[in-house]
Amino acid sequence: MIIRDFNEAKNTERKVADARWNSVRMLLANDGMGFSFHITTIKAGSEHTFHYKNHFESVYCVSGEGSIEDLATGEVHDLRPGVMYALNLHDKHTLRCKTEMVFACCFNPPVTGTEVHQADGSYAAAD
Amino acid sequence: MIIRDFNEAKNTERKVADARWNSVRMLLANDGMGFSFHITTIKAGSEHTFHYKNHFESVYCVSGEGSIEDLATGEVHDLRPGVMYALNLHDKHTLRCKTEMVFACCFNPPVTGTEVHQADGSYAAAD
Repeated sequence: MIIRDFNEAKNTERKVADARWNSVRMLLANDGMGFSFHITTIKAGSEHTFHYKNHFESVYCVSGEGSIEDLATGEVHDLRPGVMYALNLHDKHTLRCKTEMVFACCFNPPVTGTEVHQADGSYAAAD
Repeated sequence: MIIRDFNEAKNTERKVADARWNSVRMLLANDGMGFSFHITTIKAGSEHTFHYKNHFESVYCVSGEGSIEDLATGEVHDLRPGVMYALNLHDKHTLRCKTEMVFACCFNPPVTGTEVHQADGSYAAAD
């Protein structure tokens, strides 16, 4: 059994960050669960375009307010606590955060922890 | 892209329940994500022994207080918001909820939605 506390993990290398977001990796590929699980916090007023071509991701809003735009269809959906979006079609999307937002995110295949966002908004596939 | 709102889903057949817990299935096997994602609420004062022999499960505490006992080792860990346990060894365990607790849960392989807890605390493997 693995036990991890977000409030401890956020002070370790499990936290990856740039100026506008951070993500605390509660589970990574080497935990052997077949998915990774991240608590991701995004800055108020920021906008992010991602395109996870090599991963499925689900994103559950724990706190905050914002919106998600599906760039294939132009549809915009409000995000608030309890709303989840899932990128079942590897959907290219833009996330806009009105307030600071906290999300519980699952990735399949699991993130290894060393990925960086590429110019196209994706994470590279693991080797 | 799939968009689902817990506050709507909890009033539909996505919610499964018994007297002491309920689980709102935000993602199931047929969503094609390779994992399922559930928001599970457990009653204050209740105790549950589970043994997911056929699944890996991670359980992230969103709210509430309680504990998790690893029945193989006897170790007991406090659960509070931000603490996650992950059953990477299909660990048989007892969950005790001091207050009502809400968890964000991921299952691999994904739950289909028709499983029931068997006498041994497991879900059967999908066919």
